[in-house]
Amino acid sequence: MSGNTFGKLFCVTSFGESHGPAIGCVVDGCPPGLALSEADIQPDLDRRKPGTSKYVTQRKEADQVEILSGVFEGRTTGTPIALLIRNTDQRSYDYEKIKQVFRPNHADYAYVQKYGIRDHRGGGRSSARETAVRVAAGAIAKKYLHEKFGTVIRGCVEQVGGIRCATADWSVVNDNPFFCADPARVPELEALIDALRSEGDSIGAKLYVEATRVPPGLGEPVFDRLDADLAHALMSINAVKGVEIGDGMRVVEMRGTEHRDELSPEGFLANHSGGITGGISSGQTIYARYAIKPTSSITTPGRSIDEAGQGTDMRTTGRHDPCVGLRATPIGEAMMALVLMDHWLRHRGQNADVTVAPSRIPGEVP
Amino acid sequence: MSGNTFGKLFCVTSFGESHGPAIGCVVDGCPPGLALSEADIQPDLDRRKPGTSKYVTQRKEADQVEILSGVFEGRTTGTPIALLIRNTDQRSYDYEKIKQVFRPNHADYAYVQKYGIRDHRGGGRSSARETAVRVAAGAIAKKYLHEKFGTVIRGCVEQVGGIRCATADWSVVNDNPFFCADPARVPELEALIDALRSEGDSIGAKLYVEATRVPPGLGEPVFDRLDADLAHALMSINAVKGVEIGDGMRVVEMRGTEHRDELSPEGFLANHSGGITGGISSGQTIYARYAIKPTSSITTPGRSIDEAGQGTDMRTTGRHDPCVGLRATPIGEAMMALVLMDHWLRHRGQNADVTVAPSRIPGEVP
Amino acid sequence: MSGNTFGKLFCVTSFGESHGPAIGCVVDGCPPGLALSEADIQPDLDRRKPGTSKYVTQRKEADQVEILSGVFEGRTTGTPIALLIRNTDQRSYDYEKIKQVFRPNHADYAYVQKYGIRDHRGGGRSSARETAVRVAAGAIAKKYLHEKFGTVIRGCVEQVGGIRCATADWSVVNDNPFFCADPARVPELEALIDALRSEGDSIGAKLYVEATRVPPGLGEPVFDRLDADLAHALMSINAVKGVEIGDGMRVVEMRGTEHRDELSPEGFLANHSGGITGGISSGQTIYARYAIKPTSSITTPGRSIDEAGQGTDMRTTGRHDPCVGLRATPIGEAMMALVLMDHWLRHRGQNADVTVAPSRIPGEVP
Amino acid sequence: MSGNTFGKLFCVTSFGESHGPAIGCVVDGCPPGLALSEADIQPDLDRRKPGTSKYVTQRKEADQVEILSGVFEGRTTGTPIALLIRNTDQRSYDYEKIKQVFRPNHADYAYVQKYGIRDHRGGGRSSARETAVRVAAGAIAKKYLHEKFGTVIRGCVEQVGGIRCATADWSVVNDNPFFCADPARVPELEALIDALRSEGDSIGAKLYVEATRVPPGLGEPVFDRLDADLAHALMSINAVKGVEIGDGMRVVEMRGTEHRDELSPEGFLANHSGGITGGISSGQTIYARYAIKPTSSITTPGRSIDEAGQGTDMRTTGRHDPCVGLRATPIGEAMMALVLMDHWLRHRGQNADVTVAPSRIPGEVP
Repeated sequence: MSGNTFGKLFCVTSFGESHGPAIGCVVDGCPPGLALSEADIQPDLDRRKPGTSKYVTQRKEADQVEILSGVFEGRTTGTPIALLIRNTDQRSYDYEKIKQVFRPNHADYAYVQKYGIRDHRGGGRSSARETAVRVAAGAIAKKYLHEKFGTVIRGCVEQVGGIRCATADWSVVNDNPFFCADPARVPELEALIDALRSEGDSIGAKLYVEATRVPPGLGEPVFDRLDADLAHALMSINAVKGVEIGDGMRVVEMRGTEHRDELSPEGFLANHSGGITGGISSGQTIYARYAIKPTSSITTPGRSIDEAGQGTDMRTTGRHDPCVGLRATPIGEAMMALVLMDHWLRHRGQNADVTVAPSRIPGEVP
Repeated sequence: MSGNTFGKLFCVTSFGESHGPAIGCVVDGCPPGLALSEADIQPDLDRRKPGTSKYVTQRKEADQVEILSGVFEGRTTGTPIALLIRNTDQRSYDYEKIKQVFRPNHADYAYVQKYGIRDHRGGGRSSARETAVRVAAGAIAKKYLHEKFGTVIRGCVEQVGGIRCATADWSVVNDNPFFCADPARVPELEALIDALRSEGDSIGAKLYVEATRVPPGLGEPVFDRLDADLAHALMSINAVKGVEIGDGMRVVEMRGTEHRDELSPEGFLANHSGGITGGISSGQTIYARYAIKPTSSITTPGRSIDEAGQGTDMRTTGRHDPCVGLRATPIGEAMMALVLMDHWLRHRGQNADVTVAPSRIPGEVP
Repeated sequence: MSGNTFGKLFCVTSFGESHGPAIGCVVDGCPPGLALSEADIQPDLDRRKPGTSKYVTQRKEADQVEILSGVFEGRTTGTPIALLIRNTDQRSYDYEKIKQVFRPNHADYAYVQKYGIRDHRGGGRSSARETAVRVAAGAIAKKYLHEKFGTVIRGCVEQVGGIRCATADWSVVNDNPFFCADPARVPELEALIDALRSEGDSIGAKLYVEATRVPPGLGEPVFDRLDADLAHALMSINAVKGVEIGDGMRVVEMRGTEHRDELSPEGFLANHSGGITGGISSGQTIYARYAIKPTSSITTPGRSIDEAGQGTDMRTTGRHDPCVGLRATPIGEAMMALVLMDHWLRHRGQNADVTVAPSRIPGEVP
Repeated sequence: MSGNTFGKLFCVTSFGESHGPAIGCVVDGCPPGLALSEADIQPDLDRRKPGTSKYVTQRKEADQVEILSGVFEGRTTGTPIALLIRNTDQRSYDYEKIKQVFRPNHADYAYVQKYGIRDHRGGGRSSARETAVRVAAGAIAKKYLHEKFGTVIRGCVEQVGGIRCATADWSVVNDNPFFCADPARVPELEALIDALRSEGDSIGAKLYVEATRVPPGLGEPVFDRLDADLAHALMSINAVKGVEIGDGMRVVEMRGTEHRDELSPEGFLANHSGGITGGISSGQTIYARYAIKPTSSITTPGRSIDEAGQGTDMRTTGRHDPCVGLRATPIGEAMMALVLMDHWLRHRGQNADVTVAPSRIPGEVP
């Protein structure tokens, strides 16, 4: 494949540029019979969409999704589901001035090296705008997994710069623009983002995502391990520079006696592994973290060059997020949903003959 | 694919169990005309192989590779290259006692959940023994990339438990059993491993891998970004729980003014991004880090259950590494080589029409 | 993949039902820099579209294509090209009466067996309407190959029922509704189709397609041979039941002395192999034939059953082609273009290091 | 993939040259729990192997298969099954004289065009020797399908040159070297082959293959239709130039009233479609035919050129089949088994939620 398709059996093929007529995707492989309409997809799109608070980019996009195929009389038919989102607020003129200039740490330079040409309007294909279609496709996977297994996939922000947020109260995550589960931190986050805007700077963030009630057995050793595909999925999100499964980087300083998850007849006694052993889901909660770099589009001037290789100072104007991480929580949830969905279909395809003995212990930690 | 093939154009299909007759792989897609013999592959296999020092598992394996196809009169022909490594030191009886028991934090439990059956001898397919074939396949990619671009791929250990190793002197990396580039730390590492063995415990490690002289333009947005495929590749190595590209998890606390890599007519002024922007190689050095969990096979007894779900205490005997990370450096190098090789062929396939303008700045940091 | 994507590097992912809101596809992997607009695609769509003569279905579809992405300032950017065609003339009520009945030799029964549900309106996904997007995607491949190599891909009808048409005059192929290169046969074809309509019956057809000026070296032994992928491509067209490469089925009665294509310093002395040996293009003209079954949708009543398994007599009304083969010529051209395009990119990816010696003989037969 | 892997979930990756040390394959995706040993594979290999009668090539190969992985205590484990067949009778010196010459209608010329290099010994990778591994892999699929559904896959010769063989008596197919089910024709075939040998010529053949008791629902519209993948599979066999499903090329002259398979409460009333409608299995017997060209390796001299482009007359010596079709029956069976197996797993992966209503009619024709 040429890089724009994700998944082997549950396949999402994405298309569209930030300032083109539309973005969208084709979801191929969705099992038939799932009740589905735009109303199942729109809520997650609305959680991700820009312009919802003063803390994110002010670009105004309705992000209204249209289902073009694959659904008949309210149910999926097993044929490809095409999703279309028209772009409505493209101010290309904002980008005329950077037409010949490479923005520091943007995809500009690499795209020209690769393709010899680039759509400079808002980053074109490299824009985070593309992630809207991941969220739309992920919503379908989320719904299937929830109806089939009761799987719940959810995420929140864990850290923004030096501010650490506890996973204290899931009920408030969607009540603030930061997907913060720690109400006491919200005012601090507001102050930080305000300060960054006035300073013309940006900041990184660390996000957490988990999936509960995941059937055991998902993941294909050795290369398509569930954790490897999760790492692929999360690292494919714009600006992500690090991915952790379970204890993540912390394992470097851990002892085997501390890290290993012991078992008892009542279930696992710990979940340091993040619900995945040998690349296969154990039935425990799967959880991961991903680090998002500070937005490169800032108003503080930086040294750069133009397409002729001449030096220049540049200042990115236009509408940007001081912290792209703030809107990335629904994207991480979507990517985890796509990975689990694909692996469920792959697992079932190869192993549906297997009957799991009743003596198996419960996966979830008591 | 069913999980044992890596790559789209440069495809490695791996097979074999820890205690079966053999392990090996088929490398499909290697360009024709590359001078190749077992002598090009054996050195990396020897770097990874067990039993070379008292600090790693004492299993004795010659890890002698045989090329079965794809090479004619000393050159690759463009047809599949099959590599075979016979297992020579399988002491299956070591494993009889764990036949019905799930070892904590091993793949045992998950494998039975998935397949309803498992080869319990040394972990079967889930054993790190499988990584030998990755190293063998990676050696082919390494050689091609070096001859074509002068690319050098190398790695070293950065941390073991609390011991941090500087990347001080690449010339000594292969002179100690830890792949440590910091001679002063070697005695400390020796002491740590000795202590762990006597305590019946194990420890985690963080490894570093880099590739210099990588052509710009490698990576397929949006899902098959070069960094996403690197994360997939490194996370697919046994026991890896975290992957970082460039600044990695550190970006969480960084400012945009600090992190963005500025450009000048003489080249990039920094490389926080790890040589990848927008998922595409920039021409700078590509570097990544991966965290490996402490070995789960330790002699300190732990709580577990048997296949009937009954509780039991268990103690893993057999021959194990107190720190699996110690032998994982060549594996990380191999996986990076496989990713770069595959993306070079994919990039060339789609974009060979593109001519890079002479005005392009040098990618490497001056 | 889940069946709706064609190609490995030049990937076409198709979506849409006959009577849904739209059909379309995503073309991923098109090299950057190709001049492209709707005007390059529309002509082939118009050649295939229904309602253009009284000899084909009277459904009226503008088949107007819209490019949604992947093209910037008139050139492809190397990112996915999404093509959208809105359905405009869906008379679903025509199909209400067959809602519970399986039409003989249609996909109805098999779709319900597979998916447990079907979009009965005009066959939904199984309708030949889907082939419009293949023609649209194929037009892009055709243009690239023509600009790069001067490749010309063209087809014509060779036989309809008992009427055999010579490949006499390519210049008239598009001047009649049958894609017939044998002007003298056109009146006979007109009479045959008129007769079939009044009799409520249909007829089969054999089509020919060729590609001239194809570079040698395309095709990936052993499974993805160029001829194997061509057979896959042509057999994937609705109603095709047979595919021939070169001499095709005729080889059964041929001698080696007769069939083998001898070589001379001036070039090949014959082309019985259809331009492909060992699964690889030889540089000669590639040609193939495909047989299309008679339309199953005929007004002569036939025995069938309903979804409850009860017997019934049924008569297909609605708007249909007495010979679906009549509109299938552009589809065969498109599929051949997609196969050659994909294999060109794959070949270049693996083998671009190879320099072809100047001593090579010309591929084309003098 | 690079052309040597077949299948999406049940994946066979083939390797090996005619005169290299070995040939073999990796079968990835086989469901766990299948009883399997070399004894299940060897019989089909023996049916295909050379040197068994004076009517085929006299090369003597034991074709002894060794299972290297994926089987534990007599059952498949769900991990890759590697199969190895050592070459034992390579007389490379036979080929020294053709080292610089392109044999007419062989892969020689095209391979050099593609790879710039070729293993000239017996055709290297392009040799029919490679098909032995297909037969080995197919035997695994055959066994699974037979145990799961009672599926029987079998083939026979239908025509050799002008001699037509009826499918009269399946019980005698393996009792003669031609896989002929028409005992009366055997002496004629013997006489024909004897005559061809003395004349230094060869002949083509048409083979028939069928699968009974195939579950309905297999096949992935639109591109991976079951018939399209069957065409791909059969056309990928060396020397095949035509493939027919059901009525095949005959449909060109058929009427809809004649060809459509009507249905009754007792089942289908005919099977012109070959058990596949809309690209999906209907539950009826699946059958196909494939035409194999006359062997190009004949002792009658022919015009050719050498690598320098100079004209020369050449005469192929060495050990060859006067009719390669004679040994191709087990290969066709194997390819059909691989296609059905892969599609069963793919179908189950996406559609296992679907419950087929009891009212469904039996697929098989009464």
